[in-house]
Order: sequence, then structure tokens, then C-alpha cells
Amino acid sequence: MAAEIEEQPLALSRLLDRGLEPIRAIADQIREFDPQMVLLCGRGTSDHAALYFKYLLEIKQQIPVGLVSPSTLTSYNAQPKLARVLWVTVSQSGGSPDLVDATAAARSCGALTVAVSNASDSPLAAVAELNVEIMAGPEKAVAATKSYTSQLLALYLLADAWAGGDASVAKTLPLFAQQVIDAKGGARIASRYRFVEKIVITARGYAYPTAREGALKLIETCYLSAHPFSSADLMHGPLAMIDHSHPVIAIAPEGIGGELIQPVLDRLADQDADIVVIGSSAHASGAADLIELPVGIPEEISPIVQIIPLQQLAQVMAVARGYDPDAPRGLLKVTETH
Amino acid sequence: MAAEIEEQPLALSRLLDRGLEPIRAIADQIREFDPQMVLLCGRGTSDHAALYFKYLLEIKQQIPVGLVSPSTLTSYNAQPKLARVLWVTVSQSGGSPDLVDATAAARSCGALTVAVSNASDSPLAAVAELNVEIMAGPEKAVAATKSYTSQLLALYLLADAWAGGDASVAKTLPLFAQQVIDAKGGARIASRYRFVEKIVITARGYAYPTAREGALKLIETCYLSAHPFSSADLMHGPLAMIDHSHPVIAIAPEGIGGELIQPVLDRLADQDADIVVIGSSAHASGAADLIELPVGIPEEISPIVQIIPLQQLAQVMAVARGYDPDAPRGLLKVTETH
Repeated sequence: MAAEIEEQPLALSRLLDRGLEPIRAIADQIREFDPQMVLLCGRGTSDHAALYFKYLLEIKQQIPVGLVSPSTLTSYNAQPKLARVLWVTVSQSGGSPDLVDATAAARSCGALTVAVSNASDSPLAAVAELNVEIMAGPEKAVAATKSYTSQLLALYLLADAWAGGDASVAKTLPLFAQQVIDAKGGARIASRYRFVEKIVITARGYAYPTAREGALKLIETCYLSAHPFSSADLMHGPLAMIDHSHPVIAIAPEGIGGELIQPVLDRLADQDADIVVIGSSAHASGAADLIELPVGIPEEISPIVQIIPLQQLAQVMAVARGYDPDAPRGLLKVTETH
Repeated sequence: MAAEIEEQPLALSRLLDRGLEPIRAIADQIREFDPQMVLLCGRGTSDHAALYFKYLLEIKQQIPVGLVSPSTLTSYNAQPKLARVLWVTVSQSGGSPDLVDATAAARSCGALTVAVSNASDSPLAAVAELNVEIMAGPEKAVAATKSYTSQLLALYLLADAWAGGDASVAKTLPLFAQQVIDAKGGARIASRYRFVEKIVITARGYAYPTAREGALKLIETCYLSAHPFSSADLMHGPLAMIDHSHPVIAIAPEGIGGELIQPVLDRLADQDADIVVIGSSAHASGAADLIELPVGIPEEISPIVQIIPLQQLAQVMAVARGYDPDAPRGLLKVTETH
């Protein structure tokens, strides 16, 4: 896991160098299909990548997007009318039977189906009409790291190409990722959470998938009860459980997401919550610590580097607690759900 | 909160008696509009009701459904093309500014907008074209109970009327709800969780919203770290955190949802997890305890009674821990998010 975290700048560079042309060709086919809505399908880490794509498409492409519940197609036998629907399944391995079956069902209902995976010879790639390869290279640790950031970049490049962009915004990403890795911010804060059992991670807008994925890393490697909430949903109930013994990590980047979360940070500070901010120093006034991200990253691609300190935290804290982050108890790399 | 839990059979009866005709009239207008997709909007408890509606519509109406991220419209200024889209906002109070603004934005983008609320004179009702009243009566406890089950029933009746049904399946619901209340299953198991700090609630399909809503009740009244997972997502990582000290409540009703969760229950039993099942005795073999629901409730309406034992558990456990379930710390009844 530690090695795969370090590989991320290289994986992102590889995808920018070799992945852009095939992704543009797929974007052309999507534009020709002219979808009226988009449905996204994924589980675990890949579901968080899908959620990032949802924000991108809703904001950049001005198209309605939904995350599907695969069981409605695979177990409850729904056969929705999907004639003008773009269906995108995200899966590192491309191997989970329910995602393969749901994608096949969507195709038979008329959707244009796209697989986004790290395995071009997977069952998922075989049933989807179009394939986006994320080119992350083999990922061996059970906890996904480089495949997640490569999924995010592939989905960003697809959204950008669909919107007619030139991907120029993404070119500095490998450099930014390297800076965040070298800063070792996640490792630095690991000691303050050495004995924590519960933690809340919160964010809003583009950064919300980072909260979801960061919590999953801490759950699967450190067995923490790590709870992700959109900062708006946090106010609708879960705020009650936060006190001085229940710490909060807030993702507060430059941009609208950071502005949206600031009133929630103020409210948390008022009730003496222990807060660490990952993001901009502009949002750190009420925080016990700040992991500052490089200044000037556009908000729409910031999730691709925001997650890195949380990956580092999960890996370092797991080792400190005597766990093996490469092989969490009870998990296999390819999860087969039906 | 205790009184409002007890009121649920009466509230459901009232809605069946007086709500059916206006809901049928709204269903007629939806049918005339002939939507090609549905977008749902809600936060907290109302988001869980929206999720139930998503399953209902995908399965019964065979239409694609998405849950919206309100911030894309209200903060990131997306203006999606929603000409053939039905937009439904669910909110007990109808008062949260971001939901009102998102609904107004959706209407201006061409969607047919429907409000489902407990307040026909709310700002939300004023901006939506059509209004479904859930008729739950005033709800005073901060933790929503009767408004949740009334939201579910109103949404069921709307889905059923849209599909041309006669609502006959729902007629026995008040009776079933009364049986579950009288059985006091949630109160009975409260003592075994007296000192628990973390808990996982899991379900699949129609019952998944019950897991989400049950966890929120325990979070906001008992300040527990209660984690809901679809049983499929549980297998994709979070399974690692479950051991003998991290209990699981599983919703396993009669029907497909119960069948889908059985392999996960078997897997959890293999790793010596502490499991309590709410649902059918057919799924209780590996469980430490069972809260059996009345036999013969159709799966599609079972969520309306499944939640009751979890409401009872939250209320009784909060009191046992010295908390006030009617007024959780830090929360107001109407949450204003932007």
C-alpha cells in the first residue's frame, strides 16, 4: 500500500501521456450518442470515483446524473427504458458479478455502456460497448489507492473531452500529487489519532467523494468507525454525536466547496470539536492542525490530490496499530457480490 | 419521541383515509407529463424516504431515478436540461433553504416539481408545482419518526397510483405497525447495547433505506457511531472492521432483500460477529437475537414497519444513557442548510 501510494504521480503521468487519445475517441462516441441522462454504477472505492464523476458531469456537462442501485436490475428484475441513457460502470478489477450483470442489463435496455476499469480483459470490459482503461498498473494491496486517483483522472479527462476541453488543467496534477506525497502530511498527523476509535470526515461539493473514500480507507485498514458526511447532511442530525472525544477531519479546499463548509467548521469549533483541516489555510482558523494542499489547484481536480494525505494516514496508522494494511482481515482484492 | 412513535398507526390510517384521493390526482398529472426520468432531493431522514422511493420507482415504474446533490444547482450554478424530468423534493418541514432553492432551480430548468412535506404552507410547497401532504400532524421531537413512516407511505401511494394500482396492499399497514409497536422489540434489545459505542446496520434492496434511517436515529439520539451499509458495499471493504466487539443489526425481511443478505449473514457468522436480525425468522439462524416482523408483509411496503423497532431502540437506549431523545444536543427541528 505504501509503495502504491508513492506510485501515484507516475500513474497519473502515464494516463495523461497514453490515455488521453483513447478517452477522446470515447468522448466523441458519447457526443454522437447525445445522452439525455447518465447513470453511474460502482461499489466501494469505485463508487466514490463515480460520485466524483457525478459532480463533474452535473456541473460541467449540465446533464442529470444518477447513481444506480444494481440490485434493482440484477435481483428485482427491473427493465428500465434507457434509450437515451449513458451508463458508466466503474470497477478496478472489472470482475464483480453484480456489476457485470447490471451493465449487461443496462445495455439490453438500450443504454450506451462504458466500462472504466484497470483490466481491459475483464468480464466487465467484455459486456460494455466502450472501455476506458485507467492504466494504473497492477494494484496488489487490498486497499485501493493508485487505482482510485487514476479512476478520478480518467473520469475527469472523459468529462473534459466530452465538454470539448483540452485537458490543460490536468497537466500539473502529477507534480501536485508528488508535492503532497513528499509533504507526508498524513503520516505527520497519524500520532494524534493513535488511540481513536471513531472519527467523522466531512466535505461538500466536489470534495465530498474524498470524505467517503478517506473514511473507507480508515475502515478497511485501521478498522476504525470512520463516518463520512456531506457537511450539509452533518447538520441534519449527525452533528449531535460530535464532541471533544469524537474528532473531525474536514476537507476544505480552495473554491466553492471550501466556502460551503466554513459555516459548519465554525459551528463545530463552537462545540469544541477536535478538527483537522485538509485543504486551504483560509479554512484552518478553528482547526487543531492543517494539512495544507498546494495553492492553485483548480477545485474540480483537487479531489485527485486531496485523498493522498488520507491514504497516508490510513497506511501509517494501520502499521502503528499492528495491522497489515496490504491485507486487511476478511477481505480479498476482487470482491464478488451478487 | 416515544409518543410520536406510538402515533404511527393512527398517522398511517389518516393518510390512507384522506390522502389517497389527492395523491391520485397528482399521479394523474405525472402520468400526463410522462417523465423520462426522476430526480429526488432530500436530506437526513427525508433523504432515506427518497431512497425508498428510488427503489419503488425503479422496480415498479421501470424508470431511471437519481438522487440529486443540491449543491450542484444552488452553489455550483448548474442549469441542467430537465425538460422530461420529474423532480421530487422530500422534506418534513419544507423549510431548508438549499432544498427550496434547488427545487426552484429545477423548475426553472423545465422539470415537473413535486414537494412531499408535512407543511402545506411551507416555502418548499410554494415553489413546487404539486404538493403531496403526508398528514403526519405536528412532529415535535427533533428525531423524526412518524413523519418518516408517513413519508414512506405517501411515496408508496404515489408510486402505486402512478402505476395504476388500487393501494390495496397498503390497507393492512396500520395494523402491522400496531403489532410491531406492541411487540416492543426495540425496547427489548436495548439492554444488550447499553454500553456499545459502534454498531453497523446492514440491509439490501428495499430494506436498505431502513438501515440508513435506523443508523441516523441511533446517531442523533444516542450519539453512537452507527454505520449503515448496503450488504453488498459491506463486502467491498467495511467487513474488515467487524469483529466480536462491533455488533451488527441486519434487516432481513421476507422477499428478495432477505435472500440477498443471507450470504452476508453467513459470512458475518463465520467471523463471530454479534448479529441481531430484524425481519423474518428464516434469516435468524446465525443471529444472537431476532425481532420478528409480522409474517406476510409484502416486501415493497415492509420498510414502513421495519423502522419501528429501531426507533424504539434509539428512544429507549437514549433514556437509559441519560440523554433526552426529544432534544438531542446541538440540533434544531428545522435544519437550515445552504
